[in-house]
Amino acid sequence: MRKETKKTVEVLHTELVFPGDTNHYGTIFGGKILAMMDMTGALAAMQFCNEEAVTASFESVDFKKPLKEGDILEVRAKVIFTSNKSMVVKIDVYRIGKFHSRKDYGCGGYATFVAVDSNGEPRTIPQLKVTTKEEKRLWEIGKQIKQKATERASSSK
Amino acid sequence: MRKETKKTVEVLHTELVFPGDTNHYGTIFGGKILAMMDMTGALAAMQFCNEEAVTASFESVDFKKPLKEGDILEVRAKVIFTSNKSMVVKIDVYRIGKFHSRKDYGCGGYATFVAVDSNGEPRTIPQLKVTTKEEKRLWEIGKQIKQKATERASSSK
Amino acid sequence: MRKETKKTVEVLHTELVFPGDTNHYGTIFGGKILAMMDMTGALAAMQFCNEEAVTASFESVDFKKPLKEGDILEVRAKVIFTSNKSMVVKIDVYRIGKFHSRKDYGCGGYATFVAVDSNGEPRTIPQLKVTTKEEKRLWEIGKQIKQKATERASSSK
Amino acid sequence: MRKETKKTVEVLHTELVFPGDTNHYGTIFGGKILAMMDMTGALAAMQFCNEEAVTASFESVDFKKPLKEGDILEVRAKVIFTSNKSMVVKIDVYRIGKFHSRKDYGCGGYATFVAVDSNGEPRTIPQLKVTTKEEKRLWEIGKQIKQKATERASSSK
Amino acid sequence: MRKETKKTVEVLHTELVFPGDTNHYGTIFGGKILAMMDMTGALAAMQFCNEEAVTASFESVDFKKPLKEGDILEVRAKVIFTSNKSMVVKIDVYRIGKFHSRKDYGCGGYATFVAVDSNGEPRTIPQLKVTTKEEKRLWEIGKQIKQKATERASSSK
Amino acid sequence: MRKETKKTVEVLHTELVFPGDTNHYGTIFGGKILAMMDMTGALAAMQFCNEEAVTASFESVDFKKPLKEGDILEVRAKVIFTSNKSMVVKIDVYRIGKFHSRKDYGCGGYATFVAVDSNGEPRTIPQLKVTTKEEKRLWEIGKQIKQKATERASSSK
Repeated sequence: MRKETKKTVEVLHTELVFPGDTNHYGTIFGGKILAMMDMTGALAAMQFCNEEAVTASFESVDFKKPLKEGDILEVRAKVIFTSNKSMVVKIDVYRIGKFHSRKDYGCGGYATFVAVDSNGEPRTIPQLKVTTKEEKRLWEIGKQIKQKATERASSSK
Repeated sequence: MRKETKKTVEVLHTELVFPGDTNHYGTIFGGKILAMMDMTGALAAMQFCNEEAVTASFESVDFKKPLKEGDILEVRAKVIFTSNKSMVVKIDVYRIGKFHSRKDYGCGGYATFVAVDSNGEPRTIPQLKVTTKEEKRLWEIGKQIKQKATERASSSK
Repeated sequence: MRKETKKTVEVLHTELVFPGDTNHYGTIFGGKILAMMDMTGALAAMQFCNEEAVTASFESVDFKKPLKEGDILEVRAKVIFTSNKSMVVKIDVYRIGKFHSRKDYGCGGYATFVAVDSNGEPRTIPQLKVTTKEEKRLWEIGKQIKQKATERASSSK
Repeated sequence: MRKETKKTVEVLHTELVFPGDTNHYGTIFGGKILAMMDMTGALAAMQFCNEEAVTASFESVDFKKPLKEGDILEVRAKVIFTSNKSMVVKIDVYRIGKFHSRKDYGCGGYATFVAVDSNGEPRTIPQLKVTTKEEKRLWEIGKQIKQKATERASSSK
Repeated sequence: MRKETKKTVEVLHTELVFPGDTNHYGTIFGGKILAMMDMTGALAAMQFCNEEAVTASFESVDFKKPLKEGDILEVRAKVIFTSNKSMVVKIDVYRIGKFHSRKDYGCGGYATFVAVDSNGEPRTIPQLKVTTKEEKRLWEIGKQIKQKATERASSSK
Repeated sequence: MRKETKKTVEVLHTELVFPGDTNHYGTIFGGKILAMMDMTGALAAMQFCNEEAVTASFESVDFKKPLKEGDILEVRAKVIFTSNKSMVVKIDVYRIGKFHSRKDYGCGGYATFVAVDSNGEPRTIPQLKVTTKEEKRLWEIGKQIKQKATERASSSK
C-alpha cells in the first residue's frame, strides 16, 4: 500500500436539462443522470489518484426528485474511501434554483473506481487522508460499500 | 394489493458498440452501459405492469468485463420481485461472440421501478407469479434489494 | 462457395422512443428508424456469418404506422437469403403495446450485407439452411432483392 | 389534382465525418448516412410542396464507396416525380475531395414522401414541371419507384 | 434600471473528452467546445439574474491549446458586466492535469445574454456589484464587449 | 507567401431543427448553432486551401432571430480573407421558409481557421483572389477580424 496520503477533491459538473435529455414525461431520463454520475465520479477518482480510472461498481443510487427540462443540475463527486487499488466515490445530484437560490436534492449514490495503467492493469493509489468528523463518517460508509462489492465478487466466483 | 398475478417478461436489447459510445481506452463508457440498463429495465417494468414506470433506485451494479468498440452487446432485463407499487428488475449485459458463438458476461445489477399514472402518482401493479425454483431464488434476491432501498428511504427522513 | 450451412439467427433490439429521437410532429424521425434497422440488420448478418459485415444496399422499406414519443419499439432482423459473399436481411419494426399486449407493425424492409475481412475485402460466407415453407418463401423474396441490387450494380458500370 | 406546376429545388447538406459518426472500421456507419439522406430528402420534399412532409418509403439505396472519418460529405436531394399526394426524391451522397477538387460518388437512392397537414392527413401537392431530357428521364425512374411502393402497399392488404 | 445589486456567481462544468466529442485529429471538435461554453455561460447568466436567459452574441473566442480525447476539461463562466437588460459573461476553458496538478488554459471568450420572460420578452435584471480591482477591470472589458455588440446591431439596421 | 490565388468556395449546410436540438423554450440551443457554424466554416476553409484546417477564433457572432423546432436552417460559409497561414470565414445562418419562399436572417459571424499538416503544424495557404466590389468589401471586414485576433494574441503574451 502506498504511504502517500491526500485530501479528497470535489468535482463539480453543472448542466442545463435539454429536451434531448428527457423521456416522454418531460423529466430527465434516469440513464442520462447515471451517465453524468459515472463521468463526474470518474473525474473525481482520476483527479484524486492522478491515474486513469475505470468504473468497477455502482451502489445504492436513489432517485428522489424528478428533474425537468429547463432545470439546472449540479453533480458533485468526491472520493470518500480508498483501499489499496480502488476508490469509493460519493456522487450527488442537485437541482439548483433558477428563480431563487434554493438547492434541492435530486438523487445520489456511490460508485467504486479502480486505477489502471495503460494496459488496463490495476495500479496502487495514494490513500485518502481523513481528519474531520464528517470525513470519518463518510469513510465508514465507503468501507461498507467496498465490502459489499468485494462480497459479491467472491460469491460469484 | 392487486390480486392479479403475471409471469415475468424478458426484454432484449442488442446493440453494436460504436466509437461514439467509448471512452479514451477504446472500451464502452460505463455511463453508456448504465443508460442502456436503465432503458431496458424500464421496458421490462412497463411491459410487466402495463403502466408507465420510472426509475426509483439502482443497486449492486458490477462491471466485470470491459466491452470494446465493435463488440455486440446484449442487455436482458426482467422483473424478479413485486411489492404493492414497485418492481425489482434484474438487468444483465453480455458480450455476444462475433467470430464464434460464445457469450461472455459483461456486467449486471438490479433496479427498482415504480408504476406511475399520467400525473406521476404511484399506481398499484399486478403481482409477479413465481413458480420455478429459479424464480423463487430471484424473488428472494429482489426482496432484499427492495428492503435495502426502503431502509435508505427511511433513514434519510 | 462454402459447403457449410446454418440456420438463421433472429436479433432483437427493443428501444423506448425518447423526445430526442423525434421530429417536430412528435413522431420518431424516419432517419432514426433507418439507423436502428441498419444496426440491427448488421448484427443479424454478423452473427450469422461470424465475420464483420458492411451494408451494401437497402430495398423496399415501407413506413406504415408513425411511432410516437414514449412508444416501445421492437426491431427484429434475420438473414433470409445468402449468395456466395452476401446476405439479404429482413428487418421489421413493431410497436409493442404498453398498456395492453397488442403488437402493431410499424415499418419494415430488406438490406444486403457483405462479409469483410480486416482489410475490407469480401469473404465467403456459410450458406443459409432453409427447410420450412416460410423459410423457402422468404428465400425467394431475398433472391429477388439480391437480383435487383445486382442489376443496378451492372447497369451503373 | 392541383393544376399548379413547379420546378424542382435541389437541397444541399455538406458535413464533416466525425469519429462519433463511424463504426469500428473507421468508416461512416450506414445508419448515419441513411439518417442524413432521410433528412435531406424531407427538406427537398418540404421545400417543393411548401407543406410538412413525412417519409413513406425508401428504395434502391446502394452503398458504393465507404466514407471515412475526416471525409467531407455532400448530400444532394431533389424531387423527381409527383403524384397527387406524394413525391419521389432522388438522394445522392458524394465525397468531396479535401486535398484536390475531385468529387466521388459515395451512395444514393430514392425515397417517397407524403405531404401532411397538422393532423397528419395527406395533402394535395403541386405537380412537378419537367422540361429537359434529363428531367424526363428522372421522372420515368421516379414513376417506377412510386409504382413499386404502390404495389407493395396493395399486396400487403 | 433595477436598483438591486448582486455579486457574480461562478459556474463550473467539468467534463471528460470522449472520442465522440473529437474530430479526425483526435482533438476536441471546436463546435463541441463552443456548445459547452454557450451552455455554461447561460447557466452563469440565469443564476445571476434568476430569470431565463438567451444568447445574444459571442465575441473574441480564442482557441489556444488543442484538447485531446481523454483530457479533463473545466469550463468556468461568470457575469462580468450588466446593462439594463443584458449580461456579459466571461467563459474560460481549462485542461486539468490528470497525472499532475497543473491546469492549462485551453480557450476562452465572451458572450452576451439577455434575460427573457415566458413570452421571450426582455426583462430588467439586477445590476452587478463590483468592488475589487479585478472585478472593475473585468467590468471595463465587458463594457467594451457590450458596446461592440450594440454598434453592430445599429449598423445592421 | 504562396503566389497561387483562388476564388472562394461557398459551402452550404441545410438542416431540419429537431426537438433534440432545442432548449426548453422550443428554440434551437445557441451551442448547437455555434457547432454547425464551426463545422460549416471549417469545410469552407478546408475546401479553399485543400488542407486540413483547425479553428483559431470566433468573432462577432450575433443571434438575431430565434429558430424553432421544425424550422429549416441553411448555413452558408465562405473564405473572405487570407493571410499567409490563416483564413477568415464569414458564416451566416438563415431560416428557409417552409410554407412560402421567404428566407430570414437568423444569425451570423466570423471565424478564423489555420491550415495544418498531419503533425498539427501550420501550412502556407493559397491567397484569396478578390475582384468584385463586394469581395473587396468583405476582404476589408476579414482583415479587421484577423487584426483583432492578432492583437489579442499579442496582448496575452
